[in-house]
This record gives sequence, structure tokens and C-alpha cells, in this order.
Amino acid sequence: MQLKGACIFGQSGGPTSVINASAYGVFKTALESDCITRVLGAAYGIKGILNDDLIDIGLEDPKELKLLLNTPSSALGSCRYKLKNADEDETDYKRILEIFKKYDVRYFFYNGGNDSMDTCNKVSKYLLSKGYECRVIGVPKTIDNDLYGTDHCPGFGSAAKYIATTCAELARDAKVYDTGTVLVLECMGRNVGWLTASSAVAKFQDAAPDLIYLPEVPFDLDKFLDSVEKIYKKNKNCFVAVSEGIKDKNGKFIAEYASEGASKQDAFGHKQMGGVAAFLAAEIKARTGAKTRAIELSLLQRCAAHCGSATDINEAYLIGCKAVKAALSGKTDKMVATERDPKSPTYKIKTKLIDLQDVANAESKFPKEWITNRNAGVSDKFFDYVLPLIQGQPDMKWENGIPRFAKLKKIKAK
Amino acid sequence: MQLKGACIFGQSGGPTSVINASAYGVFKTALESDCITRVLGAAYGIKGILNDDLIDIGLEDPKELKLLLNTPSSALGSCRYKLKNADEDETDYKRILEIFKKYDVRYFFYNGGNDSMDTCNKVSKYLLSKGYECRVIGVPKTIDNDLYGTDHCPGFGSAAKYIATTCAELARDAKVYDTGTVLVLECMGRNVGWLTASSAVAKFQDAAPDLIYLPEVPFDLDKFLDSVEKIYKKNKNCFVAVSEGIKDKNGKFIAEYASEGASKQDAFGHKQMGGVAAFLAAEIKARTGAKTRAIELSLLQRCAAHCGSATDINEAYLIGCKAVKAALSGKTDKMVATERDPKSPTYKIKTKLIDLQDVANAESKFPKEWITNRNAGVSDKFFDYVLPLIQGQPDMKWENGIPRFAKLKKIKAK
Repeated sequence: MQLKGACIFGQSGGPTSVINASAYGVFKTALESDCITRVLGAAYGIKGILNDDLIDIGLEDPKELKLLLNTPSSALGSCRYKLKNADEDETDYKRILEIFKKYDVRYFFYNGGNDSMDTCNKVSKYLLSKGYECRVIGVPKTIDNDLYGTDHCPGFGSAAKYIATTCAELARDAKVYDTGTVLVLECMGRNVGWLTASSAVAKFQDAAPDLIYLPEVPFDLDKFLDSVEKIYKKNKNCFVAVSEGIKDKNGKFIAEYASEGASKQDAFGHKQMGGVAAFLAAEIKARTGAKTRAIELSLLQRCAAHCGSATDINEAYLIGCKAVKAALSGKTDKMVATERDPKSPTYKIKTKLIDLQDVANAESKFPKEWITNRNAGVSDKFFDYVLPLIQGQPDMKWENGIPRFAKLKKIKAK
Repeated sequence: MQLKGACIFGQSGGPTSVINASAYGVFKTALESDCITRVLGAAYGIKGILNDDLIDIGLEDPKELKLLLNTPSSALGSCRYKLKNADEDETDYKRILEIFKKYDVRYFFYNGGNDSMDTCNKVSKYLLSKGYECRVIGVPKTIDNDLYGTDHCPGFGSAAKYIATTCAELARDAKVYDTGTVLVLECMGRNVGWLTASSAVAKFQDAAPDLIYLPEVPFDLDKFLDSVEKIYKKNKNCFVAVSEGIKDKNGKFIAEYASEGASKQDAFGHKQMGGVAAFLAAEIKARTGAKTRAIELSLLQRCAAHCGSATDINEAYLIGCKAVKAALSGKTDKMVATERDPKSPTYKIKTKLIDLQDVANAESKFPKEWITNRNAGVSDKFFDYVLPLIQGQPDMKWENGIPRFAKLKKIKAK
């Protein structure tokens, strides 16, 4: 079962505030292993392999590596690069095999979402078909929480905590005057509503949005405006959370309405993109005359490491460790997934391995039976699910009043 | 010197994440005083006095009051209400005197910025002219840091810390792909650049914006685009921070260009407001073809209590205490201000009292001599000034994964 050789770790897709905690788990376990002769990081994901742009992790200061636990964004750089099928175009695969041979790579860990697991799966199958022994393990990450086959995804808990915390703060600020405001908050989630649903957690501080719209159910603009108007007239305030990916009954993104027509140009004739929140705020203003404010959480929700969930950070780290241990024990072609221990009275998570094939390109949506309040709210079952994931404050190092993040030397591997 | 009677405390203008820490300082000191017979809070600032809408603070749970130390937004509600001059229209002043007599109010504390100090000053002068003894003390607050006569304003340190922290995180996220991005971040500050300048603190994590534009110097769009293009071509990335209040050489707000012309309408013919960041991002895209992202920090920067500065919170609290102590000792017509101890080798702050008259409607701008890098950066002198103000993490109470804020009963005073 023992296999000696180098390992490559790469990060792919949109980053999270804990993606580097998984990187640290992989690096630490790999550096401590006798079988793994060298630990390499791919610069900008799979592109780093194709470009022979690899970082020698063994040359990094262990103290800096440890700071990866609380460092947001992909420390090695990321990419959105989709491999073609090998039977259509073998070019990339040949290059990958060439690089793997060059560095004697026998372990490949790839950290990402659905598309990245697809990449993982394709690379694994190709290497197998060429008789090149290499163990390939996927490490999950995504703030969207849409990966198939796992209880939840590293990255989601921290983003959910940030969104809920922000809502608890924003709801107070938005109603500070007696003149009334309608606040529209836009969260990420093109196809799934997990992040937007997390805004509901602010209910524990009496600060949940009055209306919450997820992409899993069709969005009806007229009904929406009716609902806002009713609440605004009653309370003088209304707080709405929407997912960037809400669509009308024909499947058209509401964001498309936002960017259509005259709105696209500024005074100089240049396109000016407005998000869903800005669009809905404009519609609300036109209907009700209310003072409105649109806030798009944008990148903030996926990089706010200072407001990360300790549970999420810890799990992301453990999953990284687990990926290496699984490969060392002979496993390949798997992704590390989580499941809750149903026998434990308190939240307890176990890891398991699932086939890459099953994860690749599948998607886990927010359960429709958890959508309540005439498609504008979430049920208590969601709170049972999400609360354990957002517990605990990160143990950050601060310097000069701001977080001290990892500073890697990134020395190119020879 | 002893004066017995009730006190009223009110909050005015845009909130901060530490404004309630000052409220707690006022409440605690007033509740412990023998001279102050009753502690009242004005709902929605001066409007609460005009509307006889006063909250009996003595009926609140002391534990909840203490949570005000970390509770963002104005717990009592705020207003933007400008009193006319008494010689033009006495109506409001008569009403204020009536209410003060009704509750035997002998102490009035008003928490706000320049306009609020003007209100304070006018009320004080009027009461004096009517021979009604009442001690009036202003309690400073503003994230903008534009109050005259004080080293800095409570609220600024926390907002600055949040902005610097966010930049340290965002800068990492924005350059995660090798395909390049231009990120434009918009901070508050209609007339002064203190907040936007704070983005520069991210330099201690190698994450400062490449270009920083404050409203204190004219903004030249062409020069700006040249600078962005140069940096983007060199680094494949560019990070820009702008103040919402930047103006061209004729004094026209750049935000006005953003909302002019065709851009104001969406597909339904409704106005869609875009901020300065969105406008500049569109211009950059048109010039360079770069992928751009505009982020407006909006309310987030003034309500992010979870990322507050312990120094700021502590000072806001002490200033509230000091206001009451000053009034009890016979002072009136003053605002509590801060000054650094020039003899102390480390940061040490003292409070002093300055005349309301001097503060009212004056404005403290970001020093022009601290603006460097051809009007697109700030000098090291600013770091000496700002770093002490953003030190220390808040000691928050967390519940259900989110901050536990004060829940006041707000029982109306009889």
C-alpha cells in the first residue's frame, strides 16, 4: 500500500474565508508523512500544473503556514478552468502527466466545488488509463454549500455566520430614524439559497429580514412588491434579503432585468451594472415612495475571515488532514465528505469518503420543504441545521489593529 | 453648585457602532448620581422631546444596559432634525422648555456630530435666555471624524478598523485569479476623507489600495483612469479606494455623474442609483477592458460592532461618563473633546471641555499635507495618528453564533 512520491495541492473556484485552513491541514499532514517526499502547491489551481508553476511548500516557515488557518482567499491563487473530456482533447491531460512524472507526483489533492471535483475525477481517470499510479482526493469547499453527498461544505459556516451577524447589525442601523426605510440585502448564490437563508439566523437578535427570497422557488415581482408595501405600511420599515440568483417563473434571472435597457449606460455611455438589490430597491421606491437602500454583500461574505466560524475553520482543517490520510492509506478517486452523528445528542461530525464521480457536477439545493412564509421565509428545521455550523469565534492573530494573515514566500519548485 | 432634577439623553445623526457605548457611560453615571433624580432617553433624538416620547432608563435591566457597550446603531433611535433659530421661529424651543419643565429636566446630554452640537448650543442658549437652569453637554460621535476641536471622534476608530480589516481581506480575494481584476471600494465621507484614508492601514498586510482618493482634493477622471491603467497593465490587478464625496475641479460630485443621464433608469423606467464606485468601475472597464468589481461599504462600515475597536469603545464610554460628571460639577454649554498627552511616549488620551459654540457647524478635514502620491495616497503621519485608535478586539457576548446585543424594554416615561 505504501506509495512514495511528491504531492500537489491546488485550490480552485471562488475562495472562502477558510479554504486555507484546509490547505494547512493538507500541508501539515503531508509534510509530516514519510511517504510524501515533497509537498508542492499549484499556483492558480490546475493552471499551475499546466504552466509548471509549482510552489515548494517545504521551504515555507511553519509559523506562517499555521497562519493559513485564519487567512482568507486562496493563498496559492485559484482558477476557473474546465478540463475538456480526454477523448475530445488530450492536450491538457498529457501535460499534467508530463508534470506529474517530472516531479514524481503520486498524490494529488484538489480543493474546490462541483467543477473542481469534476476536474479531479477526470485527471484521476486519465492517469489510471495510462497506468500511472497516483492517488487523487478531492477536498470540498464552497460558501454556496451546494456540494452533493456531504452534510455541509467547509466555507459555508463562516459565510453564514458573517451574513447573520451582518443582518443583526444592519437591521438595527436601517431603522434608526422614525422616517422609515426599506433595506434590500443581496447575498451570493446563483442556484442555491443556503447563504441567503442564513440571514434568517438574525431572528435570534430580533433582526431577521421580514422577507427572504431564495433561487429554489420562482420570484414574482408583483407579489414581492405587494408584500413589501404591506410590511412597510404596517411597520414603517421593511428588511428584505434576496439571493443574487432569484429567477422569475420563466427561469429568467431577475438580475437580467436589472441590467437590461437604459439602465446599462452612464452619462458617458458606458455600461453600469446594477445588482438585483439595486433593481428591487428602485422598484420598491417607485411603488411605495419609501426611502430605500440596496446593499450587495459581494466579496465581503466570502472573505470576512475576522468573522469566521471556529467550527467551520476547525472542520476545514480536519478535512484537509483527512484527505492526506485517506490517500496515504491507499484511497483514491474520492472526496472527503461530512455527516452528522445521528446518535449524538449534540452536534458531532464524522468524515467519510464518497466517489468523485458522484459529486462531480451534482448540486445540493436548499430543501423546498424548508421554505415557508409563502416562499419568503425559512422553517425552524433550517436553524437546527445551520446553528451548529456557525459556532465559535476565530482565534485570530492581530497586528497593527488588523488581522495578521499568512505571508508565504512562494518559492518556485525546481 | 448642586442641581437636582431629571436628565435627558438623546442620540442624533447617523449612528456608529459605538454610539451606544457613550449612551451607557451617560446612563450608568447618571443612574449612580444623587443629584440626577431620573434618567430619560429621548426616542429619535430631539424629536422625542418635541413629541413627549421619552423612555424611562431607570426601568431597564442593568445587564441589558451594559450590553449597549457593544450594540451598534442608536439604541434610542436617531433623527436628522435641524432646529430653526429661536428668533425666527420659537415653536420648537417653547415645546422643549415645556417638556423640560414637565419632567423637571435639569441636565441635557446630546450625542451627535456638528449639527447636533448646533442643536445643543441653540437649546442651551434659549433655556438660559428664559432663566431656566439646565446644564447642557454635547457628547461627540461620528464615523466621519470631522468634529472640530477634538483629537478624534468616538465611532471613527471602529469604522477605520473595519475598513482596514476589510481591505486586508478584500485585496487578497480580488486577486485570487491570474486573469486580473480592478476593485473599486467606496467608503463614506461626503466632505472629509478620514474613513477612506483608513483603507491605507491594510498596507501592514501588504493589502493597501494602490490608489486612494479623498474629497479634500479635486478628482480628475482622466488622470485617475491613466493611473489605474498603468497599475493594471503592470500588476494585472489594481485596487482603488474612493470616498463617496470626491468632486471634480469645479466642485461637482463624481456621484452626480454616476446618477446622470440614461443610467438612472431600469428596464421598467425606474431610477436606479449607482454609487461612485459603480460609476468608476464602468469607466475603468470601458478604458481598459479589465474585469472590474465595485463594492460600496454602505451602512456596513458604521454598524460592524463585531469588528469594533476596543480603544474606541472604551473612549466612547468614558466620554459619556465624563459628560455627566462635567454637568454635575456645574459645567454647561460644552462638548467633551479628546486630546493626546504629548508627554506620554505611548498613546494616552485626556478629555477636555470645549465651547459648543466653537464646535457647532465647524468641520475638521483630513490634513492636505498628509495627502501624498500625487493626491492618491496618504503619508506615514496618518498611520501615527490612526493606529492607536483601532487597537484591541471588542469583548462581545455571542449567542446562537451571532452577537448578543442589548434588548431594551423602552418603557415610556410617565
